[in-house]
Amino acid sequence: MTLHSPHGAALLSLVLVFVPAKLLGALCERLRLPALVGQILAGILLGPHLLGWLTPNETVRLLGELGVLFLLFEVGLEVKASELLQVGRTALGVAVAGVVAPFVLGWGLAELWGEPRLEACFIATAMVATSVGVTAQVLAARGLLEERASKVILAAAVIDDVLGLIILAAVTGLAGGGLNLLDLALTAAIGLTFPLLFARFGSRVMRWAVPRLRSKLGLAEAEFSIALILLFSLSLLAAYAGIAAIVGAFLAGLALSEAVERRVHDLTRGVSELLVPFFLVGIGLQLDTGAFATWRTAGLTAAIVVAAVASKLFGCGLAALRLGRRDAARVGVGMVPRGEVGMVVAQIGLGLGVMAPTAFGVIVVMSILTTLIAPPALLLVYRGVPAPAPRPA
Amino acid sequence: MTLHSPHGAALLSLVLVFVPAKLLGALCERLRLPALVGQILAGILLGPHLLGWLTPNETVRLLGELGVLFLLFEVGLEVKASELLQVGRTALGVAVAGVVAPFVLGWGLAELWGEPRLEACFIATAMVATSVGVTAQVLAARGLLEERASKVILAAAVIDDVLGLIILAAVTGLAGGGLNLLDLALTAAIGLTFPLLFARFGSRVMRWAVPRLRSKLGLAEAEFSIALILLFSLSLLAAYAGIAAIVGAFLAGLALSEAVERRVHDLTRGVSELLVPFFLVGIGLQLDTGAFATWRTAGLTAAIVVAAVASKLFGCGLAALRLGRRDAARVGVGMVPRGEVGMVVAQIGLGLGVMAPTAFGVIVVMSILTTLIAPPALLLVYRGVPAPAPRPA
Repeated sequence: MTLHSPHGAALLSLVLVFVPAKLLGALCERLRLPALVGQILAGILLGPHLLGWLTPNETVRLLGELGVLFLLFEVGLEVKASELLQVGRTALGVAVAGVVAPFVLGWGLAELWGEPRLEACFIATAMVATSVGVTAQVLAARGLLEERASKVILAAAVIDDVLGLIILAAVTGLAGGGLNLLDLALTAAIGLTFPLLFARFGSRVMRWAVPRLRSKLGLAEAEFSIALILLFSLSLLAAYAGIAAIVGAFLAGLALSEAVERRVHDLTRGVSELLVPFFLVGIGLQLDTGAFATWRTAGLTAAIVVAAVASKLFGCGLAALRLGRRDAARVGVGMVPRGEVGMVVAQIGLGLGVMAPTAFGVIVVMSILTTLIAPPALLLVYRGVPAPAPRPA
Repeated sequence: MTLHSPHGAALLSLVLVFVPAKLLGALCERLRLPALVGQILAGILLGPHLLGWLTPNETVRLLGELGVLFLLFEVGLEVKASELLQVGRTALGVAVAGVVAPFVLGWGLAELWGEPRLEACFIATAMVATSVGVTAQVLAARGLLEERASKVILAAAVIDDVLGLIILAAVTGLAGGGLNLLDLALTAAIGLTFPLLFARFGSRVMRWAVPRLRSKLGLAEAEFSIALILLFSLSLLAAYAGIAAIVGAFLAGLALSEAVERRVHDLTRGVSELLVPFFLVGIGLQLDTGAFATWRTAGLTAAIVVAAVASKLFGCGLAALRLGRRDAARVGVGMVPRGEVGMVVAQIGLGLGVMAPTAFGVIVVMSILTTLIAPPALLLVYRGVPAPAPRPA
C-alpha cells in the first residue's frame, strides 16, 4: 500500500500541518492565549529541530504565501480607508520611529558583537519591518479592529513595510556593490504614492465599479470573483513595484470594504481558515536552533531579541504618546512582531553571501520570538475593551 | 523593476489562471454554456500550444489538486448518503457497464490501429474512469443534484472511479512484469468496502461526533475546521488505500451533509470558488496537439473520442433504462467526461515506458473533448427540469 495518487505527498503535508495547528490552536485558546500562538508552536514542534515530521516544503510555502495574502485582504475588508487616513499623521510618526529605533539599535549591537559591516546592515534591516499579519490576526479574532490604536497599528505597519522594503533595496544594492539611487528613488516614490492613492480613492472607485462589473460578469458569486481578481492583481502589482505583495492585498481589501456584500467576507473567511494555518506553521518550521550553538551567538540572540522588542515598544509607543498612555502601549506592543518579514530579509542576506548561517539563525529566532511574545501581550494591553457583538455566524 | 517578492512567480500564475478563467467562464454563461467549459477553454488558449503564456507548473498543479478535492467535498455536502444508497443497485449496474463497454471498445480500437498490447491496455484503462468532478460541477451549479438521475450519476461515478483504479492497478502490475493478485484483491476489497461503510454509517457517526468535537475544540469556525480535518484525512486515507483521493473527499462531504450547519457550506464555497478554476484550467493546459500530427494518429484520436462518448452514452444509458428513457439519457451523458482521470492513467503509462507520447496525446485530447462535450449536452437532456429556488446568498 503506497501513495498511488498524485495527491499523496501534498495531502500528507496538508494533514500534518492542519491537524496539529488546529489542535494546538484550540489548546492555546483554552489557556486564554491567542490560537495563532499554538499554530506557530505546532510548526516549531513538527519542524526539523524537534519532531522532524515536517520540513519546509513547496506545498506549505505556497499555501502559506497565499494564506498571508488572504489574511491581509480580510483585515483590509474589515477596515474603512477613511478611518485609516484619519490616523495617518500619527501612524506616519509611529512608522518612522518604528524603523529608525530598531535599525540603529540592531546595527549598534551587531557591530558591538564584531559582525562584519554588511552583515550588521542586514541584521538591522531584518529588525525593521513589522509583521502586520500576526497583530492583525489577533485583533481581528477578538473583534478589536475598530479601536483607534488598532487603526494606528494597521496604518503604521503598512507604511513600515514600505519603508522596510526601501531600506532592503538600499542594503541589497550596497551588498551587490552598486547602489542605484535612481532605482531606489523610483521604488520609494511608487511605494509611498501607490498605497496613499489607493487608500484615498480606491474605495470610491470600487463602490462605483463593483455593481457594474457584477452585472456584466453574470456569474454565480460574481462579487467574490471580482474581489479575488483585484486581490491578485494588486498583490502582483505591488510585488512588481518592489513593495510587498501583502501591502497590495491589504489595499485590495481596503478598497472593497465599503463596496461588497457580507457574502464576500464569508467566502474570504473560508479561504483564510484553510490557508492561514500554513502561513503560521510555516513560520514555526523555520526555527533554527543553530542560533544557540555557542555562548557568543546565544548572547547575540538574546541581545537582538531584547533590542527588537524594546525598540518597537518604546520607539512606536513614544511616537503614539499623544493618544494617551494606554493607546501608546497598545501601539507599541502591536508593532513588535517581525514574523515572516524579518526572515525574508535574512534569506536575501544569506542568498547574497553577506550573512552567515548563524546570523540567519539569530534573525529567525528573533522573528519567531517577537511573534510569539506579542499576541498574549496584546490581549493584556487591550484588557478592559468591551467585547463586540459576535459576528453573524 | 523585477519581482522582488518571493510571492512573485506564484502570483503571476494566479493572475494568469484566474482572470481568463473567470472572463471566459462569464462569456460561456452568456452563451448559455456552462461556465466550466469556458474555464477549460481558457487553459487551452493560454497553454503551450496556443498562446504559450502558461505551462503546467507546480502552483497550478497543487491548487488544482486541492481544487478538485474541494469540488467533490462540496458535492458530497449537498447530497444525502441515504438517497445515494437508495439508487445503489442501479448505480452499480451503470458503473459496471460504464467500465466494461469503454474498456472493450478502447482495447479493440487500439489493437486495430496496430498499437502494442500493453499500450492498448493503457489506452483502454484511460477510457474507463468517469471524471465525476465535471458533471457534478454542472449539476451543482444548476441546482440539479436533487434529481434522481443526478444521484445515479454520482453514485455510479464513485463506483466507477474505484473500479477504474482496480483495473489501473492490474494493468500497472502487468506492465511491471508481475501481477500481484493478493495486492490487487486487497485494493479491491478496501476500495469497495470503505466507500460502502462510509456511505452507510458515516452520516450517523458524524451527527453524533460533530457537536461534541465542536464544543471540545472551542475555536472560531470550529465546525469548518472539523470538516477540513475529515476532508484531508479521508482523502489521504483513500490515497493510501490505493483508491482515488477524490473518492475520500466525496465521502467526507457525504458523511457531513446532515451533520453541519449552512455556514460550513458557505465557507467551503469560498475555497472552491478560489481553487476549482485551477483544476479546470489545468485540464485545458494539458492539451497536446501532437495527437493530430499524422493522419494515422488523427484517425485513432477521432475513433477513440467517438468510442469514448458512445461507450458511456449507450453502455451506461442502457444500464439505466429501467429509470425511463429520459433519465437513462441523462445518466448516459453524465458519465461521458473523462477529465483528469484519463490523463492520470496516461501519465502513469508514459512514466512506465509502455505508452508512446503520441498515444499519450490521443488520451489527453479524448479526456478534454469528452469533458467539453458533456456539459452542454447535460443541460440539453436536463431541459425542462424546473429551476430550484436560488440558494440563500
